[in-house]
Amino acid sequence: MSSSIGRELRFSIFGESHGPGIGAVLDGLPAGIPIDLDSLAFQMGRRKPGSSRLSTKRKEDDQVEFFSGFNEGRTTGGPLCLLVRNSDQHSSDYDADIPRPSHADLAVWLKEGGAADMRGGGRFSGRLTAATVAAGSVARQVLARRGIHIGAHLLRIGEHVDAAFDDSAGPELFERLAADYLPTIDPLAATRMASLIDKARMDMDSVGGAVELLCLGLPPGLGEPPFEGVEGSLSQWIFGVPGVKALEFGAGISLSSMRGSHANDAIGMVGGRPRPLTNRSGGVNGGICNGNPLRLAAYMRPTASISVAQRSVSLSRSEDTELVIHGRHDPCIVPRAVPVLESACALCLLDLLIQFEGRAWMR
Amino acid sequence: MSSSIGRELRFSIFGESHGPGIGAVLDGLPAGIPIDLDSLAFQMGRRKPGSSRLSTKRKEDDQVEFFSGFNEGRTTGGPLCLLVRNSDQHSSDYDADIPRPSHADLAVWLKEGGAADMRGGGRFSGRLTAATVAAGSVARQVLARRGIHIGAHLLRIGEHVDAAFDDSAGPELFERLAADYLPTIDPLAATRMASLIDKARMDMDSVGGAVELLCLGLPPGLGEPPFEGVEGSLSQWIFGVPGVKALEFGAGISLSSMRGSHANDAIGMVGGRPRPLTNRSGGVNGGICNGNPLRLAAYMRPTASISVAQRSVSLSRSEDTELVIHGRHDPCIVPRAVPVLESACALCLLDLLIQFEGRAWMR
Amino acid sequence: MSSSIGRELRFSIFGESHGPGIGAVLDGLPAGIPIDLDSLAFQMGRRKPGSSRLSTKRKEDDQVEFFSGFNEGRTTGGPLCLLVRNSDQHSSDYDADIPRPSHADLAVWLKEGGAADMRGGGRFSGRLTAATVAAGSVARQVLARRGIHIGAHLLRIGEHVDAAFDDSAGPELFERLAADYLPTIDPLAATRMASLIDKARMDMDSVGGAVELLCLGLPPGLGEPPFEGVEGSLSQWIFGVPGVKALEFGAGISLSSMRGSHANDAIGMVGGRPRPLTNRSGGVNGGICNGNPLRLAAYMRPTASISVAQRSVSLSRSEDTELVIHGRHDPCIVPRAVPVLESACALCLLDLLIQFEGRAWMR
Amino acid sequence: MSSSIGRELRFSIFGESHGPGIGAVLDGLPAGIPIDLDSLAFQMGRRKPGSSRLSTKRKEDDQVEFFSGFNEGRTTGGPLCLLVRNSDQHSSDYDADIPRPSHADLAVWLKEGGAADMRGGGRFSGRLTAATVAAGSVARQVLARRGIHIGAHLLRIGEHVDAAFDDSAGPELFERLAADYLPTIDPLAATRMASLIDKARMDMDSVGGAVELLCLGLPPGLGEPPFEGVEGSLSQWIFGVPGVKALEFGAGISLSSMRGSHANDAIGMVGGRPRPLTNRSGGVNGGICNGNPLRLAAYMRPTASISVAQRSVSLSRSEDTELVIHGRHDPCIVPRAVPVLESACALCLLDLLIQFEGRAWMR
Repeated sequence: MSSSIGRELRFSIFGESHGPGIGAVLDGLPAGIPIDLDSLAFQMGRRKPGSSRLSTKRKEDDQVEFFSGFNEGRTTGGPLCLLVRNSDQHSSDYDADIPRPSHADLAVWLKEGGAADMRGGGRFSGRLTAATVAAGSVARQVLARRGIHIGAHLLRIGEHVDAAFDDSAGPELFERLAADYLPTIDPLAATRMASLIDKARMDMDSVGGAVELLCLGLPPGLGEPPFEGVEGSLSQWIFGVPGVKALEFGAGISLSSMRGSHANDAIGMVGGRPRPLTNRSGGVNGGICNGNPLRLAAYMRPTASISVAQRSVSLSRSEDTELVIHGRHDPCIVPRAVPVLESACALCLLDLLIQFEGRAWMR
Repeated sequence: MSSSIGRELRFSIFGESHGPGIGAVLDGLPAGIPIDLDSLAFQMGRRKPGSSRLSTKRKEDDQVEFFSGFNEGRTTGGPLCLLVRNSDQHSSDYDADIPRPSHADLAVWLKEGGAADMRGGGRFSGRLTAATVAAGSVARQVLARRGIHIGAHLLRIGEHVDAAFDDSAGPELFERLAADYLPTIDPLAATRMASLIDKARMDMDSVGGAVELLCLGLPPGLGEPPFEGVEGSLSQWIFGVPGVKALEFGAGISLSSMRGSHANDAIGMVGGRPRPLTNRSGGVNGGICNGNPLRLAAYMRPTASISVAQRSVSLSRSEDTELVIHGRHDPCIVPRAVPVLESACALCLLDLLIQFEGRAWMR
Repeated sequence: MSSSIGRELRFSIFGESHGPGIGAVLDGLPAGIPIDLDSLAFQMGRRKPGSSRLSTKRKEDDQVEFFSGFNEGRTTGGPLCLLVRNSDQHSSDYDADIPRPSHADLAVWLKEGGAADMRGGGRFSGRLTAATVAAGSVARQVLARRGIHIGAHLLRIGEHVDAAFDDSAGPELFERLAADYLPTIDPLAATRMASLIDKARMDMDSVGGAVELLCLGLPPGLGEPPFEGVEGSLSQWIFGVPGVKALEFGAGISLSSMRGSHANDAIGMVGGRPRPLTNRSGGVNGGICNGNPLRLAAYMRPTASISVAQRSVSLSRSEDTELVIHGRHDPCIVPRAVPVLESACALCLLDLLIQFEGRAWMR
Repeated sequence: MSSSIGRELRFSIFGESHGPGIGAVLDGLPAGIPIDLDSLAFQMGRRKPGSSRLSTKRKEDDQVEFFSGFNEGRTTGGPLCLLVRNSDQHSSDYDADIPRPSHADLAVWLKEGGAADMRGGGRFSGRLTAATVAAGSVARQVLARRGIHIGAHLLRIGEHVDAAFDDSAGPELFERLAADYLPTIDPLAATRMASLIDKARMDMDSVGGAVELLCLGLPPGLGEPPFEGVEGSLSQWIFGVPGVKALEFGAGISLSSMRGSHANDAIGMVGGRPRPLTNRSGGVNGGICNGNPLRLAAYMRPTASISVAQRSVSLSRSEDTELVIHGRHDPCIVPRAVPVLESACALCLLDLLIQFEGRAWMR
């Protein structure tokens, strides 16, 4: 298992959904960086279960405890260790003998030869993303002080789509979106999505979706291609978020059916500087930021844990069986994934920025 | 810049399209591994420019020279250094003062403050992918000896799509596909794609597409999530291939509009072993191989270098101008990217396997 | 700051001496590895302060709490998070304004621009080595099950030296040494060292020393030179132990004044296998284990914190001053460093073994 | 094998002494960095064999060919690939069946199961250090432009010692030392060392020695402890230089027999700034530069390849035999290791500086 990521800013997560708790270590911050705890609590609240009728009924306080690296409102220069204790565990909800279809259960069992802890998904629980949000909130604060802002909205839930980010998107829009449980640019889209999720919930089913992210204020030239370009670096982080099954940058998938003359972003002088005049490339060419906003979309599968009867097997008896899950599940995990994805982006981009600034010093 | 990737199998590339040549170092192979040079030459041939009317007229011999790590048909245990010399350079084809829209030119110029070498795209040239194919061919040979096979086809060129891989796909199909310049499962799809590319070429334009990859024979349990799971690890490699703008695993993007009851892969006993009965997950759950074939698709933008007139700027004069590129370009880079993507997968998966087997030893 | 180390076995430490506690994350262990808690407690006890008249009077319980990765006596396959809470903090013992000579205080202040937390040495406290011992104990258990054993003794305290390890050293000797607070091969050496340390204590001074380590049972061929050879890999771990200022392998320093004909270890057939007949090389040539026991020595400076008056400065007033430290300090840190150094070796060697075994699979 | 090292500045070496040549890739330099080729050639000349009666008679041109990353006197921003071709190979000098005592031969054979290429030491040849010097020369030029200078002298050859660096050492002394084949602070020491080496040569034997290095101008605060502190980071590089068997920082080994009151460097205000007034710590405390010059010493074993008869074995026949080596060898490798060690330091410190400056940006 590889539970750490990042180069200059090193992020490690640990914990299980049904043990004492989860946590993370964020290593690489200098001493004296202020951390606004209200802002951190706000971000934690966005991901928290139980905050909407549309999410799981599992309740968690999600109180972040700073175990190290933080003192009197500022970083100490040592690794920041964050702990979030589990308060509401129902491990009996899960039967570790019957793997849940399309969950990690079977794959983990195949990997670990039966020795794995599968209570509640163990370390594969979405619960660990609380640590990503806590650390990501710290990264966002550092970025914001340098004019870099990240926002996101629900691009799609099931068949319902929202409008895409356009040129008018800015920190104000991001703030409005962050306040909504179903953040959409078009308010009507949220209404439609809410009905859809509610219907899935009543059917004991789940539904997937997609999240579009935008990042403003990144310095042109950011990114270390070919192998740690902006796209490659972000992808490793984004696919670390449970449930993500596809990722695109800019017009991404549609670019594959376009001609070059239509796909290319013409370049012009804007305010005395050369800039792409459109943003089908998503702000990045050749792995390097081109001065336009960074734009990407993560596509997520529906929650694997559903309460309708499913075909599965008994691992101990090696025979087919039926699985009915009685636990509390999100009919749609996508809304709660929004702050997680934003956080993953923030951590990744801050890491790239440290490398960028360090290298710039050599010139 | 970060030109190396991989943990136990470390791959570094170097070179420019208009310098002496390009090359790579592949580090981590033990001594005594046989390398079949015919097989390597075959893979190089698949990527080689000029092999079809549909590709660039630029001719390269693409002769691989082993500078180190190889002796009498086998690895020496030291780093394998591969060199591929440039033989046919027309650096005057490019005007480094006018960045090509949607190419890396402008982003590099913004990064390097004008000090960058932009002749022919410099190190951002697709030419460097020859090194990936050479090293990838070595990795594939190691994998094949353990029953692991990777195949790919053109899932889409412009608006034309091919049939997707299904359960019948095996090494024989992979061999047939590898022999075709336009590898498709449905032969008619290739014909339609050929016309489309030809038409783009005559219009001095380009066209994008997508490649679907399948990997058979991987051990269940492979993958080191959360941050070096199969998806996250592959994504960093795949986005290192020039032109890739989106990536999906299994049903990927379509999963985002499905319900869980439809998206989930039911599990059943198959030949005495638990296995997912369908493969919408693409062979991976929670970042770990689940016993099904690994399936992914990379979506590529159309070649940025096109010969129709485009709006751009003169960097030296800071003014808008028109760009007409007279160089030789692929009207569609996707067919030549097929062996590159297969190679990136092979290198990444071999690296994950070394980690997997090392860890297995601890039990 | 870089608080993590290791490639396949990743070790991260965190915490401060005067915060809630210290801890570590050990990532990379498969599920189902048994951990003997008595053995772990025994190792913790060896490092614990207050266990001898010769060590600091500071008392710590050093109770290891498994926050994650451990369940019912075995690893879960997720990252192992260990916490050790601080129980006895006297932060007022330290005056953060006057840096202690040869301690990290001044260097940290210069690094962090005054924002650093210097209470009790902050994260530079030897207290963090408790986490190394806890994680190291887990690694030693894995190694021991494969016949690999690590032992150490005090090679030197001040001017007093012990006999060096010779061919008769084995697990029984290691066990005897581990039971002693002043582990020496020659029992008389321990007596002399005890008097010396006691005298330094009474003089409010401190004394340095050296630790010799021996590792038996490593597979010949272990090591990934040139840059992750056995020596280079161990050195990064060993210099991570506070107070180490020099490191030698085999006859090390004396080799530099020898002739080749005297320094070389002749090779002969031993039990049907080629083996070096002497061990001046310390079991490693070219960064690779040669079949002989691995032998190294770490040289440690005397504890920087002493109670005699010293010249220093007031950082706030930018003027010379005198420093008298009233805290509780070890007159000699070397005995307590013995299990820490053994632990660092164990973690490093286990990491190298995972890489070795993974690579061996490729043949 | 792990042939690459470094984080932000990534260095990979490859090649064998008896193949086409050796080389390196240096990745991480921005575009536009000027490289003075005369200075590079000067450094290469210092390491070159055959330049003195006291070194091997093997002749190499050691011409550095820039294969990539360099154009018109400056870096292009891509990885710098350096090739040095072998011109004078006598592979028949070596009998790969009889391992040379204390050389890597036996360890490599044990590792690779007989598949290893042992002609001339293969990749374990000191020949690869030419690549380190070439890349190191580039790093030194970047450092020198920021006022950072590295110098070294022979601290010991056999029983003869030179005076240690003192406070008067500066760039002028470094320049004088770099011009000498036997660089010593005390000129008489060089004379004595020369006789000693000559005598060893006539006896067909070899002799070891030590090199002391000094680095001036490093910013206080440099170093990322605990695991990538200045000492730990440098040690991984230094032990990558063939023949190094011990390493000390500052008074290093002698500190282990001192008392704290004698070992500690008192702190005082110097020119308005707090500074250690002596330098027994070698310029680093807790892994971080304290404002004093960085001082370290590497201890090297005598050349393992000697021409007197030695006991060894025939690997193919599994029996004891006698080995007489007829090749050309350095009776003392230490003088030629001086620029190699300086280069390793330069590369390591530049890497740490990039990290340091990147992190500083966050404040």
